[in-house]
Amino acid sequence: MKISRFRFYQQALASFCSAALLVSSFALPARADEGMWTYFNLPTKQLKEKYGFEASQEWLDHLRLASVRFNDGGSGSFISPSLVITNHHVASGQLQKVSTEKKDYLKDGFYAKNQADEIKCADLELNVLVSMEEITARINGAITAEMNPQQSAAARRTEINKIQKESTDKTGLRSDVVSFYQGSEFWLYRYKKYTDVRIVFAPEKQAAFFGGDPDNFTFPRYDLDVTVMRVYENGKPIASPHYLKWNSNSANDNDLTFVSGHPGSTQRTFTMAQIEYQRDVRYPAVLNILKRQLKAMNDYAALGAEQKRQAEEGIFGFENTQKAYIGQYQGLLDKNIIAKKQQEENDLRAKVDANPELKNLYGSAWDEIAKAQGEIAKLIKPVRYRNIVNSTLLGLASGLTTYIKEVKKPDAERASGYHDAELESTKLQLFSPAPTYPGLEEKTITADLEMALENLGADDPFVKAALNGKSPAEAAKAITAGTKIGDPAFRKMLAEGGETALAKANDPMIAFADKVVPLIEEAQALAAPFSGQIARASEKLGKARFVVYGRSQYPDANFSLRLSYGTVKGYPMNGTIAPPRTTFYGLFDRVLSFGNKSPFDTPARFLARKDKINLATPLNFVTTNDIIGGNSGSPVVNRNGEFIGIVFDGNIESLVGNFIFDETSNRTVAVHAAAIIEAIRKLYDAPALADEIEGKMTKTAKK
Amino acid sequence: MKISRFRFYQQALASFCSAALLVSSFALPARADEGMWTYFNLPTKQLKEKYGFEASQEWLDHLRLASVRFNDGGSGSFISPSLVITNHHVASGQLQKVSTEKKDYLKDGFYAKNQADEIKCADLELNVLVSMEEITARINGAITAEMNPQQSAAARRTEINKIQKESTDKTGLRSDVVSFYQGSEFWLYRYKKYTDVRIVFAPEKQAAFFGGDPDNFTFPRYDLDVTVMRVYENGKPIASPHYLKWNSNSANDNDLTFVSGHPGSTQRTFTMAQIEYQRDVRYPAVLNILKRQLKAMNDYAALGAEQKRQAEEGIFGFENTQKAYIGQYQGLLDKNIIAKKQQEENDLRAKVDANPELKNLYGSAWDEIAKAQGEIAKLIKPVRYRNIVNSTLLGLASGLTTYIKEVKKPDAERASGYHDAELESTKLQLFSPAPTYPGLEEKTITADLEMALENLGADDPFVKAALNGKSPAEAAKAITAGTKIGDPAFRKMLAEGGETALAKANDPMIAFADKVVPLIEEAQALAAPFSGQIARASEKLGKARFVVYGRSQYPDANFSLRLSYGTVKGYPMNGTIAPPRTTFYGLFDRVLSFGNKSPFDTPARFLARKDKINLATPLNFVTTNDIIGGNSGSPVVNRNGEFIGIVFDGNIESLVGNFIFDETSNRTVAVHAAAIIEAIRKLYDAPALADEIEGKMTKTAKK
Repeated sequence: MKISRFRFYQQALASFCSAALLVSSFALPARADEGMWTYFNLPTKQLKEKYGFEASQEWLDHLRLASVRFNDGGSGSFISPSLVITNHHVASGQLQKVSTEKKDYLKDGFYAKNQADEIKCADLELNVLVSMEEITARINGAITAEMNPQQSAAARRTEINKIQKESTDKTGLRSDVVSFYQGSEFWLYRYKKYTDVRIVFAPEKQAAFFGGDPDNFTFPRYDLDVTVMRVYENGKPIASPHYLKWNSNSANDNDLTFVSGHPGSTQRTFTMAQIEYQRDVRYPAVLNILKRQLKAMNDYAALGAEQKRQAEEGIFGFENTQKAYIGQYQGLLDKNIIAKKQQEENDLRAKVDANPELKNLYGSAWDEIAKAQGEIAKLIKPVRYRNIVNSTLLGLASGLTTYIKEVKKPDAERASGYHDAELESTKLQLFSPAPTYPGLEEKTITADLEMALENLGADDPFVKAALNGKSPAEAAKAITAGTKIGDPAFRKMLAEGGETALAKANDPMIAFADKVVPLIEEAQALAAPFSGQIARASEKLGKARFVVYGRSQYPDANFSLRLSYGTVKGYPMNGTIAPPRTTFYGLFDRVLSFGNKSPFDTPARFLARKDKINLATPLNFVTTNDIIGGNSGSPVVNRNGEFIGIVFDGNIESLVGNFIFDETSNRTVAVHAAAIIEAIRKLYDAPALADEIEGKMTKTAKK
Repeated sequence: MKISRFRFYQQALASFCSAALLVSSFALPARADEGMWTYFNLPTKQLKEKYGFEASQEWLDHLRLASVRFNDGGSGSFISPSLVITNHHVASGQLQKVSTEKKDYLKDGFYAKNQADEIKCADLELNVLVSMEEITARINGAITAEMNPQQSAAARRTEINKIQKESTDKTGLRSDVVSFYQGSEFWLYRYKKYTDVRIVFAPEKQAAFFGGDPDNFTFPRYDLDVTVMRVYENGKPIASPHYLKWNSNSANDNDLTFVSGHPGSTQRTFTMAQIEYQRDVRYPAVLNILKRQLKAMNDYAALGAEQKRQAEEGIFGFENTQKAYIGQYQGLLDKNIIAKKQQEENDLRAKVDANPELKNLYGSAWDEIAKAQGEIAKLIKPVRYRNIVNSTLLGLASGLTTYIKEVKKPDAERASGYHDAELESTKLQLFSPAPTYPGLEEKTITADLEMALENLGADDPFVKAALNGKSPAEAAKAITAGTKIGDPAFRKMLAEGGETALAKANDPMIAFADKVVPLIEEAQALAAPFSGQIARASEKLGKARFVVYGRSQYPDANFSLRLSYGTVKGYPMNGTIAPPRTTFYGLFDRVLSFGNKSPFDTPARFLARKDKINLATPLNFVTTNDIIGGNSGSPVVNRNGEFIGIVFDGNIESLVGNFIFDETSNRTVAVHAAAIIEAIRKLYDAPALADEIEGKMTKTAKK
């Protein structure tokens, strides 16, 4: 469970990750332990009344400053002055990027006995949220009554860019303007940024991801889904005072738990018209595309061991997304869930209609959304099939040409992602030394072009331009086989040479990007006016909710730092009860029940040492915390703010959490702190690391 | 998963168990490994083509003669010349009957080191099917063209009773006429009967039923649900040559498996009108009654340890039934399943309608069923709520008075259960030394009377007669506190004294039975004409199916011996895959995951000896065999006819198997042979028994 990482074209597929999402939406009246709360608006009353818990400002500041955002889509936390822990599947992109045909750190794992052996990540950026400042008044001040909606949006965007630049210039910190409650509030979030991050410990992928795609998004689970990294500045490990104290003896049944992390995106305030569009139009199309892409990658992986290694990470990502989409889709097909959403809509609508003033201001919003959504539904084919959804090479080609065009402009006029404040992050990706795989992309682009041809026809301008008289396979081969864009030196040369160098490059992928990206953007833009109408109507509904339900609300997730609370708790499952936790006994049961066959095989060291570990050690556990993709790697902490586990998944029943939270069976799945220590000590022979994590500094650990 | 045992009034609730069910029904065209096949009509072609398996007559005869019917509702098999194995939950009634306040064999288990220590069951009857003879012609010969439906049914019944009596007189064997294919075929089944059966080994209930009601009807499972008994004749262990050879090393993934046992009842040929009646009328009513009865028993159990012990077995039975009903009900609410049934009905109906002759003969049957079912639906309240569903004392009082009345009559005129051929079995129950619990029954009868009052009103004749001016609680107290019917000596005295003794008994439960049982029977009889109409229309449909689908069909289950085939196979579950088996590792995982708390606690010996057993030993496994309640205790055998496991449950997805079989996820759950031996040897210190089972005779075992 992880939000998608590659930002260029996967957005069109998943639109998960957006650090400054302008059109957010407003959440429902909170029930149970529901909610991904901002640090500036916590449910203090509920926590006090239900759990007798009061968080001091110090407790909150410490947890916030120990929380880490993985800028490519995940969460983590400091567990020592310099060590950060996250999920193996959050770190897996970096593990793959430092791997080669000969040394596969993703598959085989890694442990650096000394700091000198630690491996620097290729292009990882970590963010720590150091300040939050409300700037709603300033943003709203940029808008005057005479402006039409388009002018208002443009003025707001300009003001946001200005604020971000000013702040970056002044503080040197990453500065993002974040919108909450469907544009009702704006905050300036400043982040301390770390880019020298080194891998200290990662288990074998099969230990982290035991059970593979079948077990993904399920519980009971038996996964050691962790990776430990060390953060450096100026060539030395940092010494942050804000790290979580380790506690291996917590996470007992009914214990109060907090999760501090970065949920990517939720749509909990969707109207029925939006829900129905998702169910009847969008999900079927996206599931079709995912299926075809997975087939292309699996075909490539079947060609040989090296092809398998290259495709593995992509297959994991798409299978993961596919399973998430299927789970969400099934939730949307669930009559009870739909009835609950309908009930919520009816309630709000009845309250708005009952008040003439509210009705006049906001009463038309539902119909406006339904109408605009109907128009978007008609555009599903061009929007979905005029696309290349899975190509790093095209992302690099397009990103590079955009970079060259944009950096020449004054900051305020640049496209998103190319403002001075963002440029360093963008360059980290554009000039990443990570390898690319043209053979794999030939297959995936072929699948895209075939789908475009089938769904749009040969006369569609995008299809014409992309195929250029060739078959999909020929066209894909021509652009992937001949391009040099995969070479970081080539990209640096072009970036330095600017438009002159670009004009002389004669690279087929750059030429392809020049031709097709504008056509893709044109198709994406078709829906924009209707999306705008929906955004404005949603803003009305956001305001209506404020009036009706008051201020004790949490905003939809938007990859900004959130705190959720809950308890360790089993749940009704498959006709019986899922336990609150699993143990190493359960891992070996599942391994042997399937005859140690993939994906239920375990690394040799587990079988060889099974009598050396305490099999009763808790391995994974579940809590009622409200999370979503992007929370992967978040610390689970107890009342004392101690690290007791690490979130790595939600159960299958949690997937519909995109749209609605149901505490009955929605569960967060975490690795237990005790299992991490037991494994590091007894399975991986790394007592020094275990000591460092547990705060028992030894000579070895200080090396 | 077990069919209900007490035959007097539970029938009205569940109508599971019926050894000579006249209105059976005809099964669907077989798909996949579907089917509970009679030994006289096996799917030999399918077995040969799909699995290359051909059963010799010797193989079949041996398996049939090693198969045992537990006459109170379950199955078992011979695993040595005198040892029979069944489920702990099939034997649990007998274990409770030999238990006392001081010695609780059900809870604590039992092992007889010597034959002299074996405990004789109170009232158990085992049946072995020794011959099958088709008698359709003779039955049909008793019916003439001039007879109306009522006369035909009566003539058939008389002929059946005559055949059974003749056969019993001639052979001394239990002789049952069994109807298949909705009355299209009649067979005379003769059984060798054993009534001296002694308990050799039973584990603690918590080992057999680990996970309790939550885990009941689910998988993965970790239950040692077995009991071993020894069969005696004339005071000596029998020496049957027909026993199954033990094999602890089979039941591997995809292995071909056979289950030979006694499925109680299926309704696979129900029309949509019947299905909808079940879903909309019958299941909601039955579930209401189950819930109220369970509350009454749990209230009693909460009074103290002895009360808990008394109520435990009844609570288990009702929870078991409730969970089965909920599972079936959920299956009926499943749109896909309903659509599949509708499709089947449409197919058959279209084929019948397309053929003028078929249409003329059978085309009206669906509408006839729908009309009669509609009338039955109107009677749901008197039929369901004029009832005492859960009273052994009332069953004994009513059974005894009926016995006294019936035995005076000529055999052919007696009511079912009181013919000479059946009398021995009936007397075994009537004069059973098993204890009764008036305090418990006071609570359960109160619940019955309260429900009757609520649903029928104070003016209903049954309510009036039963309450006799008192409140439900007072009325229940008066009849349960004052009765002596629980005393076997009292019952024997009355039986010997006949009507004279009965008239002088002055027993409140007998008086209650005299007053209310005729009123209950009157209510039950209300639906009889419509049931008759349904039975006759169903017979038409059975014949239509014969014409349309041919003879390669299996009949609905009716507690007669059946053979099903399948393979060991995992299945899609809860978003992932359930493994084909579990191991002892998994047991300890689940124990520790729940902190060894009830119902996930394990006997102390398991925890104390967990390092002494091979944790990798397979514990439970699943197969695609088609089974239903009553199959509990059936042996699972491999191609060689060897015992490789014992059926004890179906998974939650199998429950709708009452109405439809879906191989995707319908699974039989069995205890693995290896686990039984591992436990007997290493957990229960009974190597002599293990040797005897494995055919390694030792001196100890011969004692």
